[in-house]
Amino acid sequence: MSKPTGIITLTTDFGHEGPYVGVMKGVILSRLPDARIIDISHTIQSHYPSEAGFWLARSWRYFPVGSVHVAVVDPGVGTDRSILVAKSNGHIFIAPDNGLLHPVLKDSNSTPLVYRLSEAWLKTMDWPKPSATFHGRDIFAPLAAAITGSQVEPADIGPAITNIVPSETGTPFLEGNEVSGVIIAIDRFGNLITNIDSDLLNAFRIPVVNAAGSSFRFHKTYGSCEPGEHMALVNSFGVVEISCVESNAAKALGLGHGEPVTITEAA
Amino acid sequence: MSKPTGIITLTTDFGHEGPYVGVMKGVILSRLPDARIIDISHTIQSHYPSEAGFWLARSWRYFPVGSVHVAVVDPGVGTDRSILVAKSNGHIFIAPDNGLLHPVLKDSNSTPLVYRLSEAWLKTMDWPKPSATFHGRDIFAPLAAAITGSQVEPADIGPAITNIVPSETGTPFLEGNEVSGVIIAIDRFGNLITNIDSDLLNAFRIPVVNAAGSSFRFHKTYGSCEPGEHMALVNSFGVVEISCVESNAAKALGLGHGEPVTITEAA
Amino acid sequence: MSKPTGIITLTTDFGHEGPYVGVMKGVILSRLPDARIIDISHTIQSHYPSEAGFWLARSWRYFPVGSVHVAVVDPGVGTDRSILVAKSNGHIFIAPDNGLLHPVLKDSNSTPLVYRLSEAWLKTMDWPKPSATFHGRDIFAPLAAAITGSQVEPADIGPAITNIVPSETGTPFLEGNEVSGVIIAIDRFGNLITNIDSDLLNAFRIPVVNAAGSSFRFHKTYGSCEPGEHMALVNSFGVVEISCVESNAAKALGLGHGEPVTITEAA
Repeated sequence: MSKPTGIITLTTDFGHEGPYVGVMKGVILSRLPDARIIDISHTIQSHYPSEAGFWLARSWRYFPVGSVHVAVVDPGVGTDRSILVAKSNGHIFIAPDNGLLHPVLKDSNSTPLVYRLSEAWLKTMDWPKPSATFHGRDIFAPLAAAITGSQVEPADIGPAITNIVPSETGTPFLEGNEVSGVIIAIDRFGNLITNIDSDLLNAFRIPVVNAAGSSFRFHKTYGSCEPGEHMALVNSFGVVEISCVESNAAKALGLGHGEPVTITEAA
Repeated sequence: MSKPTGIITLTTDFGHEGPYVGVMKGVILSRLPDARIIDISHTIQSHYPSEAGFWLARSWRYFPVGSVHVAVVDPGVGTDRSILVAKSNGHIFIAPDNGLLHPVLKDSNSTPLVYRLSEAWLKTMDWPKPSATFHGRDIFAPLAAAITGSQVEPADIGPAITNIVPSETGTPFLEGNEVSGVIIAIDRFGNLITNIDSDLLNAFRIPVVNAAGSSFRFHKTYGSCEPGEHMALVNSFGVVEISCVESNAAKALGLGHGEPVTITEAA
Repeated sequence: MSKPTGIITLTTDFGHEGPYVGVMKGVILSRLPDARIIDISHTIQSHYPSEAGFWLARSWRYFPVGSVHVAVVDPGVGTDRSILVAKSNGHIFIAPDNGLLHPVLKDSNSTPLVYRLSEAWLKTMDWPKPSATFHGRDIFAPLAAAITGSQVEPADIGPAITNIVPSETGTPFLEGNEVSGVIIAIDRFGNLITNIDSDLLNAFRIPVVNAAGSSFRFHKTYGSCEPGEHMALVNSFGVVEISCVESNAAKALGLGHGEPVTITEAA
């Protein structure tokens, strides 16, 4: 495990309305003045940890080894859901135990080390009493600062565990002649991003993506089709995407997060 | 008063459209290369200084002592409204004199020191002539850099004053058997955040929040109710909030900024 | 040419949805740990390089000499459009060759130096093979880090060129008794920002702005008119703007990006 680099990334569904993200940064900087905090995204679909985990699994590798990644999409905040700290591939991940970390840790080079924050340990810290609804500020931020600043080791916070809550959207695989997945994210252009890895396309001669009652063939890039045309492509994160060139596929097809998508052989 | 830490926070209603916030940061970094600039929020309701003051009053304490907080929600830009620099609780605040700083300064541990920027002083600075519509770039940013870099002391900029423009939304209090407040902010989840401090609930046996013709009882956290259910709670900033669990209360109830809310005894 | 300052600005149409901007920052910081990355805007109108060039041309001067400005509004990504690195006024600009840099470079104090990235040079770098759809991450970010860190000089990347793709919206000028321009940007308040420089107003005794079938007279600032009133003004970036005081001119007039605007003499 490399030394922390001082880089902390944030992935949340807090949006840009209100001071939620800024206050997390204030807490981190109050405790670790040299922290370098980078926003991955704060517009994860509300209460949809699957999208956060999907993006984090595809983003962490672009940050330096030793980065600490904090992800807070946490519909269970204030209930008895756990908080996890995991070490994987030389990076550290901090998130609620709600399936978010599943896609991140399944790609680990070696068995990831996962620790569950214990109430007992939390009481030993001189942090203000956590609120019921904003653990991002009250637990995740000071925890990230303490780990990034090497005052706390992941193993300090509680028991090592081997079972985490699985992702609610699952991991697509080939079943018969079909791969089933979901729309996991929608970018600003309205491109519909699925959780289907492009490796799974190898099982098909001429794969097509089926969604909203239509089928779409694969092209290399947006420039390969005419404006307004629908197409499928393997995007820059190696997953299947449905796009409407220079237009908004999500609106045109009426599709949103979590809706089903399949890959089949072209008819 | 502690030495400035180099941290400057920004709270505006400029949004993320256009280069307005980025250009303010460019001006600050041109003058103070070591500044660390943190966004609190740039999506304050347009032309609603009350929301900016509300959030700033509840956010500054999470930043290190010595931070400089710049808030620009400024419908009067280019008219003869004043600009204030205030010292309170070891932090410095810079904002137009339009009520924005009222909720920030009323919580000061000791009498806050407030200075009004004078045209005479401004003319002594070698800053470019201010535009009529973007004082964020032309006055607030260079002023924040100069104060954070200790080239300028707050007392330098003009006369000390004791009266600032009051908040247009006022401070809720108990009157008869009722507390009256307003919706002061709406978060990304559509939670309706009021300006009513939770201390005021102590006057009631079973308080309810009344808004949009309905009454809502208090619960501890979002997880305490079923998805789709409306509830009141004391949120993580110690104020009353109306929430619709895993759904959007603002849309469901048709409520926006500035609309009235009361606390009464349950029937 | 001054030494790079370590400041890199980003202007894109990626929005805040998904990790696109964050991942670019990760790539930069992995290669240049001391980079200071400032967002100019990520909400440029999708696939409208003209807006990006407009804002960049009016923003770079507020950053320190030696800053490196990366702009990625790139509908042609993955096709054979070129990537340019330009030196102008002591700043460096990196963008696709699609008209974006036209308004930036036309204001150069001296002849700007412009280089076109060659495939041959790109192959000499040990960067991961670029994806077809995310050159922001795969080419622009490592290139910005290499230039900002002085590992690469602009002249290294390929041939110097003298012709760049012109702006698709052109540069307004006086023709007969009229100046024709377009709505190039819309700010968060719904103000309609044109690409018409205020210098062009000098040709008129009492200029008016014509758009959407109406004419608007000029005022000094938003505070000069009553809430709800439409007005024209010269904004803080020295261009003509149509505003509806404390309201949304874009919605009220039904105008969007690229729509025509003229300046004429008042009737």
